[in-house]
Amino acid sequence: MDSRRLESLIAGRWIPGRAEGQPLLDAATGALIAHVDATGIDMAEALDHGRRKGGPALRAMTFHDRALMLKALGLALLERKEVFYAESYRSGATRADGWIDIEGGIGTMLTYASKGRRELPNARVLTDGDPEPLSRDHSFSARHILTPLQGVAVHINAYNFPVWGMLEKIAPALLAGMPCIVKPASQTAYLTEMVVRAIHDLDLLPQGALQLICGSVGDLLDHVTGQDVVTFTGSAATGQRLRAHPAIIGNSTRFTMEADSLNASILGPDAGPGTPEYDLFIREVAREMTAKAGQKCTAIRRVIVPGAHIDAVQAALAERLAGVRLGLPADPATRMGPLASMDQRAEVRARIRDLQAVARIVAGDPDAVPAGLEAGAFMAPVLLRADDPIQAGAVHDCEAFGPVATLMPCDGPDQAVALAAMGKGSLVASVFTDDPAVAETVVLGLAPFHGRVMIGNRASAKSSTGHGSPLAALVHGGPGRAGGGEELGGMRAVKHYMQRTAVQGAPSLLAAVTGQWVEGAAARTGTHPFRKSLAELRIGDQLVTASRAVTEADVEHFARFTGDTFYAHMDADAARANPFFEDRVAHGYLIASFAAGLFVDPAPGPVLANYGVDSMRFLTPVYFGDTLQVRLTCKQIDPRANADHGEVRWDARVTNQHGAVVAQYDVLTMVAKTWAERAA
Amino acid sequence: MDSRRLESLIAGRWIPGRAEGQPLLDAATGALIAHVDATGIDMAEALDHGRRKGGPALRAMTFHDRALMLKALGLALLERKEVFYAESYRSGATRADGWIDIEGGIGTMLTYASKGRRELPNARVLTDGDPEPLSRDHSFSARHILTPLQGVAVHINAYNFPVWGMLEKIAPALLAGMPCIVKPASQTAYLTEMVVRAIHDLDLLPQGALQLICGSVGDLLDHVTGQDVVTFTGSAATGQRLRAHPAIIGNSTRFTMEADSLNASILGPDAGPGTPEYDLFIREVAREMTAKAGQKCTAIRRVIVPGAHIDAVQAALAERLAGVRLGLPADPATRMGPLASMDQRAEVRARIRDLQAVARIVAGDPDAVPAGLEAGAFMAPVLLRADDPIQAGAVHDCEAFGPVATLMPCDGPDQAVALAAMGKGSLVASVFTDDPAVAETVVLGLAPFHGRVMIGNRASAKSSTGHGSPLAALVHGGPGRAGGGEELGGMRAVKHYMQRTAVQGAPSLLAAVTGQWVEGAAARTGTHPFRKSLAELRIGDQLVTASRAVTEADVEHFARFTGDTFYAHMDADAARANPFFEDRVAHGYLIASFAAGLFVDPAPGPVLANYGVDSMRFLTPVYFGDTLQVRLTCKQIDPRANADHGEVRWDARVTNQHGAVVAQYDVLTMVAKTWAERAA
Repeated sequence: MDSRRLESLIAGRWIPGRAEGQPLLDAATGALIAHVDATGIDMAEALDHGRRKGGPALRAMTFHDRALMLKALGLALLERKEVFYAESYRSGATRADGWIDIEGGIGTMLTYASKGRRELPNARVLTDGDPEPLSRDHSFSARHILTPLQGVAVHINAYNFPVWGMLEKIAPALLAGMPCIVKPASQTAYLTEMVVRAIHDLDLLPQGALQLICGSVGDLLDHVTGQDVVTFTGSAATGQRLRAHPAIIGNSTRFTMEADSLNASILGPDAGPGTPEYDLFIREVAREMTAKAGQKCTAIRRVIVPGAHIDAVQAALAERLAGVRLGLPADPATRMGPLASMDQRAEVRARIRDLQAVARIVAGDPDAVPAGLEAGAFMAPVLLRADDPIQAGAVHDCEAFGPVATLMPCDGPDQAVALAAMGKGSLVASVFTDDPAVAETVVLGLAPFHGRVMIGNRASAKSSTGHGSPLAALVHGGPGRAGGGEELGGMRAVKHYMQRTAVQGAPSLLAAVTGQWVEGAAARTGTHPFRKSLAELRIGDQLVTASRAVTEADVEHFARFTGDTFYAHMDADAARANPFFEDRVAHGYLIASFAAGLFVDPAPGPVLANYGVDSMRFLTPVYFGDTLQVRLTCKQIDPRANADHGEVRWDARVTNQHGAVVAQYDVLTMVAKTWAERAA
Repeated sequence: MDSRRLESLIAGRWIPGRAEGQPLLDAATGALIAHVDATGIDMAEALDHGRRKGGPALRAMTFHDRALMLKALGLALLERKEVFYAESYRSGATRADGWIDIEGGIGTMLTYASKGRRELPNARVLTDGDPEPLSRDHSFSARHILTPLQGVAVHINAYNFPVWGMLEKIAPALLAGMPCIVKPASQTAYLTEMVVRAIHDLDLLPQGALQLICGSVGDLLDHVTGQDVVTFTGSAATGQRLRAHPAIIGNSTRFTMEADSLNASILGPDAGPGTPEYDLFIREVAREMTAKAGQKCTAIRRVIVPGAHIDAVQAALAERLAGVRLGLPADPATRMGPLASMDQRAEVRARIRDLQAVARIVAGDPDAVPAGLEAGAFMAPVLLRADDPIQAGAVHDCEAFGPVATLMPCDGPDQAVALAAMGKGSLVASVFTDDPAVAETVVLGLAPFHGRVMIGNRASAKSSTGHGSPLAALVHGGPGRAGGGEELGGMRAVKHYMQRTAVQGAPSLLAAVTGQWVEGAAARTGTHPFRKSLAELRIGDQLVTASRAVTEADVEHFARFTGDTFYAHMDADAARANPFFEDRVAHGYLIASFAAGLFVDPAPGPVLANYGVDSMRFLTPVYFGDTLQVRLTCKQIDPRANADHGEVRWDARVTNQHGAVVAQYDVLTMVAKTWAERAA
């Protein structure tokens, strides 16, 4: 029987590799799974296909369209998860390991689907930051916008998370409007290929939005431009080689790297044996050493504890690690599966020998293999100890990418931070403490060297997602050795695939470009804008209200009615003693309430609700006898993809009889998409 | 007489270069100005000094401290500007050119000083984005923070703006808390040295915050780490070489590049001869070709006009350029000075010859030199024309960094965008149009390829800052050929010198780290927090109020009093027909007003004013008979550096009798730093 040949998906066609491609073996049994090979694929064609087909199709959709596409895709993949789990076992992943990869990956995609609809407008262009007025008379202003890059996102992924590694990167790229080419690490490409095949069969993505290369990328990087993005996850050595590629350097191609790092976990001086934090720390270190057999870029490699507790920690960890049951990944009794391959195990053993130059093994035997598991890349967890960690350079430089960590003492929080920083930049660090002062010192000390810092304590014991879990909402990536990249972080990652551009011009033209009204742009009065449904309403539709005086009686009445008898409204002497006021002033809430009374159109109509107010500022005091007038302008219209209504943001500007702006804010309403005016 | 030897400022000492260093000549007269040389400087020491002295001193200051330091420095430099202008003439810069460099640079620093105090807290840590709750019970949450990198910002600058180029980069770096090493281009380093000497004499910066290298950086880059930042402005070839430096690649050192690019200006199809936009376009192209003798990275190199108007544009530009008077920079009658050096002129002439392979000169003679100016690097403006620009690769690839541009036809906005994109990424483009549809098409088409796009039209004719001017508030930098970097953009640039870190943990510990209260963090009740001055108030100080019912009478009364008789409050049938409500509901403004009545402490005290409300959301409808209760918590305390008060942000959460959150918002108040409670 011919063995399986993995196929690449290029320009809509599945292209098998040669039969003599690299053989991929089951991590636990050594059985042949497939051959992988990408010889002969026209990489320039793949890029071109993404640019010509996938990009325009994605860019024609709105953010909400793309988010709904991701939602449908994520839900459909979730239905197929058991097939992926079955394939995942072959990589050495237990069910728990596979959960991180498969459901973690799909969950990340679904988080982008929901956050995308909640945090991005239903539009094709993003605005970034507030408008920047560039002239006093509002005849020249600026706005930053974000538009999708017009190239392809090339994702060169690591072997350890063949599903998550793909989905956590394509979700923000597709949401941004960029097509992707995924190149999984060959070792576990069979699982990625299976998921891409499912995605392809589901036919939920536009043509060219997702391509797959099983095998080497060949000359692909020679063809990238300044509009493409290349991301890399894996070893620092490979990443640095790619980053220095002439086409990437020459075209200033965006390159994001997420490399393995020597992540540290620190035990606080308050968290000695007997405290809940101590127990949490022991459990977390053991878990991070053994989850996915330690083959996680976020795994704890350096265990930094107060010198007084190091022997206790060593004993507790040794005991816990001894109880970790190795076995076949699919066996529910198994706590730790094999490494990904025999080569990988040999590499880890070699790194342990390097570490042994400055540290000694205090738990586990790197060469022991449980009986019956000789065919797989099994290895027991290994704990080393370095008693002079400041001199032990290798423990901060040499990574054994397996179930391996080094224990080391520190003499206080500052030294713990200094030791962690000797790793020269990591993805994540954690500190276990219940002392706010320790948390502050250690976290702020660690922060410049880390992309993520987790604090463990009793209060979060049940709910913590742990040291090793990147989350869709939080940035993932770290400086220095960790590659200097940044992924995830919610909508931040979407912006990595977009170009930020400052647009300057007359406000009316800025409004035409961004789809949002800005101060100084043309406005139209006429029909009360509350009488217009989304079908009729346009940005710039404006109401200028009648005026209304604010009297002493009004303020006294409002104070008594609401109970807000704050001295600035009620006590002339105290008000005059206040640095901001010359006399008693009207309440801010009274101004906003009167403003609503002036601008609201009361009859039933398409405006359904006022669901909020943003950025309200009271800019000029309102004294008794001042009159208020409101200018209400439709600023932004955001129809919901899945409902009969949408959000409308109104610019509300309240002025006094001198034309001074008394209050400025955004009023947020829900407005119906259509509305048949009824007879009164 | 010995000629002047420029000096470097390293570790607090001024170090002269060797007398045999590179001679620098006056651009207009050829006279020797100085020699420049940095041989023998210990670059590792310079980095070390910045890291050990400048960094810690800057990081000990708050953002407002640093902003006030920049303000004092900027104002003091402004007083010395005439000395700088006198030196600036030697570089070939006219008074107008020098204004961009000197007052533009100091103005940028002052903008960072004022924006920094307005947009950043008076703190040492920035939070980034909203808190991210990670558990339903608020026992585990996350927050992104930004902390200054602990290395040195190394700024390798271009020769054309020796003052602006330095100040626009050190202002955001110093504001972020990072020390700087400035390496100006040798050609005009005499002016940068003069400004750094003034800064040093003013003694307003901490020791080690600013160092200067006059001459080559030698082996400096060999010593950078992942905590340093390297920025480069200048030619793409040099920038690419630096970007690929092994230490930069190997340490993932942040590297920002801003390279010369082939910026385009586009005439809209609506903007033919006779329109104001046409006149503005002609004036702007001529101005950008001749300001600073075209030696601006943002200068217009490609002039894209509708084919129907190209002859008219050519004639108009030729006439305008012919009127540009060349002369000595200090002569007020001079409109254009010389290029920076004879070498530079030779280089520009060579590039014009390259362009002539695909374009023809239609105005100006690159080899003509006005009589009496033979000793300087003078050159008249040169306009070329390429009638088949799609085939004329060189006009999109070859930059003559002088008073040179190429005119080319297009057949509509889409082709104009395509031609602009053939530049493979630029710092800036402009379009002259009064048609909103053209503005939208062209700007959105240009955006992915540009860091800035300016729209010129009649409405902004008087107030526009022009195509070529980077502004402190707007991003400067572009993709691809322009280097892929981003500078300025207001506070965005400050963040380029900081590390973003996701911090996860129990809310109380997050509050300790960030200095901001978050939902779920510990709170303290007791004395009403409105009775506490900033000296006494702490984040987490909390008030839980009594309850108050909202009756039908209240709503009717409020409606009549304010005039807000919106149907959802007044008309039961219409309210029930609304998708969000089951019956008549209370006004949002009534809820907020009653809430204030519940939480305000009325007697004169340290709370001075309510100056605004942020992010108010009405989350649950309030029906008649519901009762409201407020929990008010001190969230953030921001004492002003220069006043007797500061801003306090309160978390206001209004719940109903079922505990459902009815409204959630931030209340913003001014609070006195101290307060002596008076006898009642």
